[in-house]
Amino acid sequence: MTTVPLDRQALAEVVAELGFDVRRASIREMNNLVNAIEARLGVPFVRMEFGIPGLPTPAVAVDAEVAALRERKVGHIYAPFEGVPLLKAEAARFVDRFMGLQVPPTSCIPTVGAMQGCYASLSLAGALDPARRTVLFLDPGFPVNRLQVRALGLEAASIDLYDHRGDALIAAVEARVAKGDVAAVMWSSPNNPSWVCLKERELEGLGRIFTEHAVLGIEDLAYFGMDTRQDVLVPGEPPYQPTVLRYTDHALSIISASKMFSYAGQRMAVVIVPAALMGRRLPALVARFGTADLGHAFQHGALYPITACAPESTQYGLAALLKAANDGDQRVWEPAREYARRAAAAKALFLGAGFHLVYDNDLGEPLADGFYFTIAHRGFAHGAELLAELLHYGISAITLETAGSTRTEGLRACVSLLSPERVADLEARLARFAEDHPPS
Amino acid sequence: MTTVPLDRQALAEVVAELGFDVRRASIREMNNLVNAIEARLGVPFVRMEFGIPGLPTPAVAVDAEVAALRERKVGHIYAPFEGVPLLKAEAARFVDRFMGLQVPPTSCIPTVGAMQGCYASLSLAGALDPARRTVLFLDPGFPVNRLQVRALGLEAASIDLYDHRGDALIAAVEARVAKGDVAAVMWSSPNNPSWVCLKERELEGLGRIFTEHAVLGIEDLAYFGMDTRQDVLVPGEPPYQPTVLRYTDHALSIISASKMFSYAGQRMAVVIVPAALMGRRLPALVARFGTADLGHAFQHGALYPITACAPESTQYGLAALLKAANDGDQRVWEPAREYARRAAAAKALFLGAGFHLVYDNDLGEPLADGFYFTIAHRGFAHGAELLAELLHYGISAITLETAGSTRTEGLRACVSLLSPERVADLEARLARFAEDHPPS
Repeated sequence: MTTVPLDRQALAEVVAELGFDVRRASIREMNNLVNAIEARLGVPFVRMEFGIPGLPTPAVAVDAEVAALRERKVGHIYAPFEGVPLLKAEAARFVDRFMGLQVPPTSCIPTVGAMQGCYASLSLAGALDPARRTVLFLDPGFPVNRLQVRALGLEAASIDLYDHRGDALIAAVEARVAKGDVAAVMWSSPNNPSWVCLKERELEGLGRIFTEHAVLGIEDLAYFGMDTRQDVLVPGEPPYQPTVLRYTDHALSIISASKMFSYAGQRMAVVIVPAALMGRRLPALVARFGTADLGHAFQHGALYPITACAPESTQYGLAALLKAANDGDQRVWEPAREYARRAAAAKALFLGAGFHLVYDNDLGEPLADGFYFTIAHRGFAHGAELLAELLHYGISAITLETAGSTRTEGLRACVSLLSPERVADLEARLARFAEDHPPS
Repeated sequence: MTTVPLDRQALAEVVAELGFDVRRASIREMNNLVNAIEARLGVPFVRMEFGIPGLPTPAVAVDAEVAALRERKVGHIYAPFEGVPLLKAEAARFVDRFMGLQVPPTSCIPTVGAMQGCYASLSLAGALDPARRTVLFLDPGFPVNRLQVRALGLEAASIDLYDHRGDALIAAVEARVAKGDVAAVMWSSPNNPSWVCLKERELEGLGRIFTEHAVLGIEDLAYFGMDTRQDVLVPGEPPYQPTVLRYTDHALSIISASKMFSYAGQRMAVVIVPAALMGRRLPALVARFGTADLGHAFQHGALYPITACAPESTQYGLAALLKAANDGDQRVWEPAREYARRAAAAKALFLGAGFHLVYDNDLGEPLADGFYFTIAHRGFAHGAELLAELLHYGISAITLETAGSTRTEGLRACVSLLSPERVADLEARLARFAEDHPPS
């Protein structure tokens, strides 16, 4: 077993060589830094910096991809740019059985991963009204969404969920929207990195704002079904996955396969565009997308120019996963459930070692266990100092600042790579950390 | 065998119902129209409107995708956003062996199809200099590139290859670039739809202009190796694929797998960014991409926000195709060679039936046989009239106007779906057309 803390001089040299500012390091940069430390010091880290799905993709998806390639021979044929009919049909069924909403298959549009779905949604938002150029984020959030806003030439604004929940959140969003420059409001729930989940009454309030102010909601359901406090994974029975689409037609919901089905490498997601929105005509769209029809603008104007179609075998792979889920096959949810088990174990170890949760309160309820949680330590005023110290104990994470949080004291820890075999390592390393950093 | 001409009344009804203007119909719309006519009249068309690769993807790619999914278990793991190392290495070898140029693997960046490569290249071009907002197209061209320019908020300008070849082309491009607003010059060669191919001295002239004026060349090699007048498909031996990268470092070259390897459904291409360009620092890039480093801006700023990575199994599929080609396995080029055989047969039939080629001259040489050719008929002043008439003979195409050509009399015919069994149909239908439309 590795002896911690690691050699301080050797570690300082690696950090200096790579020249990263740990405070500002992006997830990918932190990943590179930890790779370099592991290689130089010969120490396998407990890696909690990167949200890589760590479990194998369910076999039903792999089998469907192979059948598409070998039997359907899809390799040489462009898929329809609005998506393979089988995937659209199973996605509509999924929305019915797990979200409790009726949408037609035409409302279910495959994208090359949820990141492309977010990009196209933001691109659409930016073309709805030339006077509205700001995207309001409910932070903390996924840093790439900020890159997307910048690449699209839009502005970003922020409301932090640490300070604003419930009625305060609705009031803050409504006040910001009232300025008239907001094109869209974007968030993830469960939230990356804080794992807070918007409640039905918050979604209802947001939905009302979107309808009344004609602002587009963009709901990133990257962690669908992973709020484990309620089991939304029984098809056709409540409770259902909370979604703003229950309260407004003026929003898009993006369903990712990466985490819920551990299917990140092949890149496939579905954007749900409510039927009422699909058919809406907005003259402002013509300038950028050549059509006033919102559904046509989204598919042919925002998505098609980015990629001719979503890769075809993977559309069949996701269709097979959704069909299995729709038919009640619980095996496809095994990745989502395993991440919750890992989070419960890891959170207990951190709390036992003198850490506390930064985002610790979900409108009065304790947080669910899922892909991420947020930690801080009374001995460290700034998250970057805490992170720098944790690296000496063979544990990596990213700062909450990287994720756009106002909570500069905190870190985000991701449990996806924490295999059951590594839990003992984490326990031993945190025990030593606690010994070296007793409560003051 | 189908009797042509088809019932004029019945066909008129279908056209009226769908409400398309045949002249302006996009490729996809024409596709829908022909589907509807086929279904209503029970007539299988000779379909020449759509550039769908019609031959199966070589087995080596399918096998490599299956192995990646089943043995490498790539489904759940994000690929590196700069691409899978094996693909980057084989792409660099491919550039050496088939283009005769040395580039490092870091210069070979996979994208989700060449359309994504074009989009990211145009996005980069638009951020190089705030004063340069125009993309100059060498037309005719791929209509989606115009959609991309519009979606990115850039302007399009055009020089038509019908009127400008050789020194006249270089002079026209240089005069247009001298105005100072051109960010990039974009073209495909072999050209979609005219199948003219830029000659080495034209590429040399363009390369000089790009270097001197700091304008970005964007070369779409969608039809790599498909100028059949010279065999560039012997690895490591001249002649090599003509490319502007032989004459300038200020250009990107986009290598598509869709047509040359009949691999369109899975969406994989490689953008070649010369090493000298990768490392260039341009302060103007910071505003949109957060970095002045051009290589970082392209990969992390322009590509990454669109999709987290290119789908992983397909990266292994393309790597296997490139490796086979690099190792001299000629079987992977069978799709490219078969399209040439089809073009030679089809062109002879059209010419025999009183048609002539619109773009008939490749700087004094006859055109090569390939994916597309362009036709007109003396009896029809406008391409849309000719197309409307051809539909009655069970033959579909698109107008050259759709492809941005100034030659309003012409049509583009694509041979990809013309299987050897359908050649007799085409011959009989064109014979009847010739009988009904004798030379005046």
